[in-house]
This record gives sequence, structure tokens and C-alpha cells, in this order.
Amino acid sequence: MNASIPAPDDRPLYRQLADQYRRAIDNGVLRPGDRMPSMRAFMQRHGVSLATATESYRTLERDALIDARPRAGYFVRARPTATLPAATEPDLAAAPGAAQFVGIHSAISAIVSKFQRYPDALNLGGATASPDLYPTDALQKAALRALRRRPTLLTAAGHDQGDPELRAIIARRALDAGIQIGADDVIMTHGGIEAVNLALRAVTQPGDTVAVESPCFFGLLQALESLGLRALEIPASPTTGLAIEALAFALQTHPDIKAVVVVPNLQNPLGSVMPDTHKARLVELCARAGIPLIEDDPYRELADAAQPPRSLKAWDADGTVIHCTSFNKTLAPGMRVGWINGGRWHPRIGMLKFAQSRHNEQLSQVVLAEFLETNAYERHLRRLRDRLRIQRERMAAAIAASFPDGTRFTPPGGGMFFWIELPREVSSSAFFAAALDEGIRVMPGTVFSNAGRFDHFIRLSCPSTDLDQADQAVRRLGRLAARLVAHARTP
Amino acid sequence: MNASIPAPDDRPLYRQLADQYRRAIDNGVLRPGDRMPSMRAFMQRHGVSLATATESYRTLERDALIDARPRAGYFVRARPTATLPAATEPDLAAAPGAAQFVGIHSAISAIVSKFQRYPDALNLGGATASPDLYPTDALQKAALRALRRRPTLLTAAGHDQGDPELRAIIARRALDAGIQIGADDVIMTHGGIEAVNLALRAVTQPGDTVAVESPCFFGLLQALESLGLRALEIPASPTTGLAIEALAFALQTHPDIKAVVVVPNLQNPLGSVMPDTHKARLVELCARAGIPLIEDDPYRELADAAQPPRSLKAWDADGTVIHCTSFNKTLAPGMRVGWINGGRWHPRIGMLKFAQSRHNEQLSQVVLAEFLETNAYERHLRRLRDRLRIQRERMAAAIAASFPDGTRFTPPGGGMFFWIELPREVSSSAFFAAALDEGIRVMPGTVFSNAGRFDHFIRLSCPSTDLDQADQAVRRLGRLAARLVAHARTP
Repeated sequence: MNASIPAPDDRPLYRQLADQYRRAIDNGVLRPGDRMPSMRAFMQRHGVSLATATESYRTLERDALIDARPRAGYFVRARPTATLPAATEPDLAAAPGAAQFVGIHSAISAIVSKFQRYPDALNLGGATASPDLYPTDALQKAALRALRRRPTLLTAAGHDQGDPELRAIIARRALDAGIQIGADDVIMTHGGIEAVNLALRAVTQPGDTVAVESPCFFGLLQALESLGLRALEIPASPTTGLAIEALAFALQTHPDIKAVVVVPNLQNPLGSVMPDTHKARLVELCARAGIPLIEDDPYRELADAAQPPRSLKAWDADGTVIHCTSFNKTLAPGMRVGWINGGRWHPRIGMLKFAQSRHNEQLSQVVLAEFLETNAYERHLRRLRDRLRIQRERMAAAIAASFPDGTRFTPPGGGMFFWIELPREVSSSAFFAAALDEGIRVMPGTVFSNAGRFDHFIRLSCPSTDLDQADQAVRRLGRLAARLVAHARTP
Repeated sequence: MNASIPAPDDRPLYRQLADQYRRAIDNGVLRPGDRMPSMRAFMQRHGVSLATATESYRTLERDALIDARPRAGYFVRARPTATLPAATEPDLAAAPGAAQFVGIHSAISAIVSKFQRYPDALNLGGATASPDLYPTDALQKAALRALRRRPTLLTAAGHDQGDPELRAIIARRALDAGIQIGADDVIMTHGGIEAVNLALRAVTQPGDTVAVESPCFFGLLQALESLGLRALEIPASPTTGLAIEALAFALQTHPDIKAVVVVPNLQNPLGSVMPDTHKARLVELCARAGIPLIEDDPYRELADAAQPPRSLKAWDADGTVIHCTSFNKTLAPGMRVGWINGGRWHPRIGMLKFAQSRHNEQLSQVVLAEFLETNAYERHLRRLRDRLRIQRERMAAAIAASFPDGTRFTPPGGGMFFWIELPREVSSSAFFAAALDEGIRVMPGTVFSNAGRFDHFIRLSCPSTDLDQADQAVRRLGRLAARLVAHARTP
């Protein structure tokens, strides 16, 4: 960068220097991942004392512009929010809407059929990471080993609740999420979605009302629809997830709520993580009201934090929480391995699972058991988190640089989703269709609500390890949004 | 055998000779599979003409005691019915019972927990063939090939409705069952049981009544129970399956029937196969009443007939029949691959399947596609049918030889089940418990009805390719039944 000293002004020197570096970062002269000068080089270049240099770096660090890395120095952080305000927080003063039977499937089918007419479109609308971020080779080798060691894996029937060895390993690992269970408290399921379906079937009857986050994963809305349930949408914050006090109020005003479904960690689509105090309060609230709390937690291990967040189940003292999760998002979308702990309803869920689909296939369970037992899973997770973070930072920068004024979003602390609030003039349905014409799949916000909300939101996911391709796609979307705004404003 | 000429009586010589051989077979002097003397040796041994020899053999053949095998001569047939009368036909004059909510799960759980307390017991209570009758090596090799060829099978998400190539092959093969469909009319499911569950969910609401065969597969009763449905039991014949006229009457008297579930081929537990005329009449009956007919057809390809029986779907002109089947019984209990054609309800079933558990795992679908495409499946089926037939003949002979008077059963024309009517004095619950003490698992008849029927029936399956072991186990069961009869008759 240019090392000339800025024109003197009446602010302290350390702040003037920090501002100079801030502009360099904002202009792209310094880019995310670039190394900052060493402290000694900084002092020499600007002719300042160690105290001033230190204070400049502290200022930049406090403003989340640079990061210290132990024994490596300071580096420019990605800073997507630099030019975009955070997503709007929900209006909690508004009265909750009425619980409604869900009718979302036909809208989703329409989107899926439109996707299928553009098979070559770049997929920013999916809910899994790029296939090359999953450990294909290692899983393939593990499967080959498992098949050679246990030739009857395909022909012999398996254990009703799932492979006992795998369930024991899962129970041990659940301690990381703050969950204390044994192997018999785990039932393997066909992905997390079967787990959530079984949980809903265990505690509701058709016609019942279920409280869900708004926005929420459209797969949950489809499950509610297919089970003949009503959804009551409770606002959720882009940063802290479900608004607990809004739920507390709804529980008072809607005595017919029979279950609450929450994605506590890296919520889909928000990317929010509930703070521990909220988690504790939510579990307590449901326990006191005697209402089952269904926790869908497939993204927890994709959080950036050194210590991954805990599951709601960690705060569960009396079996109120039904914990559902899977390895579909973290390890292998093709393996369809999930599991459930049913809390107080565990025996009933075991009955429903047996009656509905019997046991899971054995092979993928044996492969998974080996993966978990040898720490290969942990190694993979670290790599996956790093690569997703790099993708997110790059995409966030492209969004901030290219989307029009009025766009807002809060960068998530992990996972693969961006929940983007477009300017009010832009309908996500129109945006979705126009993006497909540009060869890009995005998910319109309307499918994340049964109550017609989020028409000016879209969900983008990190789809590709080709960062330049994703970057260009996002910039095309940004220009598209700008055109739609301009069009709407044309008299 | 002893070749002395019997004392003269006033019956024709050919009949006297035939009776002599009949006694030798009944006494076990000639055993199933033994070769009969050649025609020339018979003439010489008994000093009779070719006409008399021929007539003797025709008599034995007509009585199903011996079989001609082209270019090999005559052989003694297994003849299980020789000393046991056929199973009792249901009383169709009795009025149908009331439809009842199903409550069978706790009884089945009790049986399963008792089984688990005897892990080393010989399993004559299962519903799959012996593991060594399934093509373990060939499937293992196919899986290894598939994994090497397509390394992303575990990590990439699959197609919503199942692997397109497999569905195309299944659609072509369905012609054998008389079913004309395309690949898009097939949805892959987690075994046949998920297919039946989806069918029931598509056409019923909790509280509805479903007509089922009596006796029927207890897994169906568990599915009804888990879905909050009522069962109306329609009598079924041990030879021809569902009693159509009883169903016709029930449809008139029970207007609340919302679905009919039938296993048309090798019904579990009866082993019955519906004649074509019955199948046609059943489909017509349901079509005219506008009631969905759910066909569960996993055993069809295990029938002994040169031409396997057709599915009910073959007679379906207007989408009344929902066809469910699987490869769990015929190919690989561990693969959990089934499929469904939903008739008029196909789109709704596709929605339910997606909402409930997404797509099946890819690997087993790819393995299955290869197996079906190369005729390896047909070769395996021929071998499986032959070996099951030999097992059944041996077991049938042991049952006939060892069970007490008053025992009845009809040997099935395929598959792996024996539905045995014990003497009235013997309760199958007591028999079940006593058999476990003897180290043998059997299925008590009570779990095949929600209406408390079949307490003096048991279902035995062919569990082992060790014929002597199975033979001895059946004889132990026969002596046990005799003891229970004697005990009941003791004043």
C-alpha cells in the first residue's frame, strides 16, 4: 500500500493511521487474507512509536477489520458488513398471527420444476455444501473396507434401532453438544427429516398447532403440511434466533400449541445461533408449559466458534426436548444417516420408526461408525469449516460490493446460508425467475413462511469451491437486483 | 425296499402295487427325493406287464406321491399332507366383526423382548429366508464395483424419487407381474413397509377404517396402529386368500372403509395365492366402490409356479390399485429397497415420501440396478425358489410326522411360511413360551389378528439351510404340541 503519511488532522495519530488502513481495506487495496505489516515495519514506515502502532492495530481489530493469528501476525479480515446494514430485527410488538394449516408444497414443487428446466444453472439454492467439500475418497475407502470385512452387510437384516456400535459412539460424542445419553437413547433414522417427522407424529394429531420459527426451513413446513398440522409462526432474529418472549406470549394466547420446533444453531435460513441464555430460557419455558420442544440440530458442528455451540437438549432436565440431527450436512448428503433422542417420547418414537420404515441400511452406519471412531470426522469438520468460512467471506464481500442500496444481511457465524433482505421494491419471486434466466438458482424467501412473509428475501448458499465462479454469480445477482429496483422506480 | 409280492386281494393288481409303494413312502422306507425303480426293473421285480407297471406309476403320480422328471425317471415327492388334513376354511356365513382401533404393538414388543432373552434360539419365527440363501458374495462384489466406479455415491445427494436408471429397469420388469408403467410411475422407498405406510397415509385419516385380511402380517397391524386407524378383519382362505364375497358384504355394511390392504401372492402368514378370477373380481369391486386397494406384494417371485402369479395391479384400469413391493424378501434383507406405484394417488405419495424421508440411499439402488440388468437376479431367484421348496418339503414332512392329531395345515406353493392350526386344546401363547424354553422361536397366531383370533395357530418359517437341524427342531415342536394336548386332556 501507499505509505505516505496522511494530512494532519486534529484526531489522535493512531486513529488517523487506523482510518488510512480502513480506507485501503474498503477500497480493496488491502484484501481479505492479506498480511498486515509487522509492528516493526509499521513503526518504521509511519515513523511512530510502538504505543501508537499498537493502538492503531487495536482499533482496527476492535472494528473487526483485522485479526491477530498467533505467531503469524495480523491479517485483513473479510468485512462483508462494511457497506451493508445488518438484517432487520423482527417486530416483536406485533401480535402473533393465527395458526394456519400449511399449504406450501405446491409452491415448492413449482420452484423445483422450474429448477429442473435449467439443469445447468449454478446452484445457489441448495442446502448442502459443494460435493467436493465432503470426504468422498475417505468414505469410499471406508465403505470398501467395511464391505470386505463384513460381506453380509447388504444381505443380513440390521438391528431395529440402528447399529449398536454406532449408537454407542454417537452417545459418547453427544457429550460435545452437552447431551448425556446412552446407546439405547439413540434411534437411527433416514436423515434428520425422518427424525423430525417421527417427533411430530409422536406428539401431535392432525389439526394440532405447532409453533415454528419465522422464517423456517421449508422442509419443516412440508412435513407439517403432510401431517395435517397447523403452523404458528413465531418471529426469529437474524442474530439470536427464535424470539423467546414472542413464544412465551404465543403459549399464553394459543393454548392449542402441541409442539415447538426450533433449529437452535445456524438456523436455516437465518444462520442465527441462539445464545446460551436463550436456550436455557426456551427449554425452561416449554418444560413449564408441558409442551414438547423438538430440536432440529444438523448444522451445529458447522459453527466457526472454537467451542461449537451446545444443543437445546443440554439444558433438558425432564425429557421435554426431542433431539433430532443428522450427518447429511456435515459429512455425506448421500448417506441419509440421522438420529433421534425422543426424551419422554422415546419409546413411542421407537414404535413409530419400526412401524414406518424398520431399520436403516447397515452399510452406511458401519462406515460412519469407523469415521467417528478414528477422528477422521473431526479432521474433516475442521477442514469443512475452514473452507466454508473462506467461501462465506468471499461471497459476503461480493454481496456487499454489488447489491443495491436497501439490501441488508447479517453474515452468519458458520454454515452455508446467506439470508438476504432485498430492497422493498424487489419481489423474491420475480428475482428468482430472473436469476434462473441468468443461469443461477436462488431460493425465494416466500417458501420459508406459510403466512406469506419474506417476499423480499432470498436465501443464497455457498455452492462451489470455485470462488471466482461464485463471486461472478453473486455480482450478476447484485446487478440483477439493481435493475429490478431501477425498474420498479421508473414511473 | 422289500420286493415280496403282497398277499392277493380282490383289487386290481396295479392298485395293490401302488398301495404297497404308498405304504413304503408313508413309513419313510422310501424318502422324498429317492429314485423309484425304472419301469423295466419294476416289471421284473413284481412280474407284471408294462400296462400294469404304467398304471401303478400313474396312480402314484395322480396321488402326488411321485414325480416324473424328464430323462431321469420317477422320484418320490415330499408329501406333507399325507397324514394332516388341510387347514380349516374360514366361516364366511359369520357376520363381520366391528372395526377396531389396533392395539397390537405391546403384544409384539413383549414377544420381541422374550426373543431377545433367548439370543441363541433357532429362529423359526422370522420373515426372511436364511442369510445363506441370499447372494451375499455377488452383492458384495457388485457394491465394490459400484463404489469404485462412482466414488460420490455416499457423498452426493440422490434423485428425489430414486435412481432414474433403477426406476426404468423396475418399470420394464413390472411387465412380468402384468403391470404397465413407466419410470416416473415408480417411487423408491425404504423397504416395502415404508411403501405401505405411504399408501395408507395418502388415502386415510386417523380414525378411518381399513379392511385387512384375517389373518394378516402383524407389521401391517402395527402400521395401522401407529397411524391411528381401525382394522376391519375380512376372512381369508388358506388356499385362495381374501374371501372376496366377505369383503363385498363388508363394503355394503361398513360405509366407512377407506382402504383395503391385501397380500395377493403367498400371503403372510397363510401362504395363499389368490386365483386370477379372484384378483379380477377384487380390483373390480374396489374400483366400483371407489375405494383404494393397497397391494403389498413382496413374495410374488417366490412362488413355485413356472409362470409367477400376477399382481392385482395387472387388472387395474383406473388407478384404483396402489402397488407396494420390495426386494427385502427376495434379494437382500439388509438393503431396504422397496418401491411403490401410487395409482391415482401417485403425486400425493411422492409428496409424502419427500416430506417424510427424502430419497433412498444411492449405493444399494445402483447395486440393485446392476443385479436386475444382468439377469443375476433371475438366476438367484431360480436357485432361491428351489432351495426354499426343498426346505419346505422337508419341514412339511417333519410336521406331518411329528405333530399330534388335530393339527392341520395347507402346504404353500412357494415362500417360506407354514401357517399351522394346532389342536384346539393348544394355546399358541403357551406353545410360544414353551418352544422358547426348548430353544426355538415360533410366532404365535395371536399377533396376526387385532380381534383376538388365531390363538391356536402358529407361523413357522424356513430358517436354515441345515435341513437336519430344522427337521429336528420341527420334531421337537411336534412332541411339545403333543405334550400340551396330553396335558390339556388330563383330568
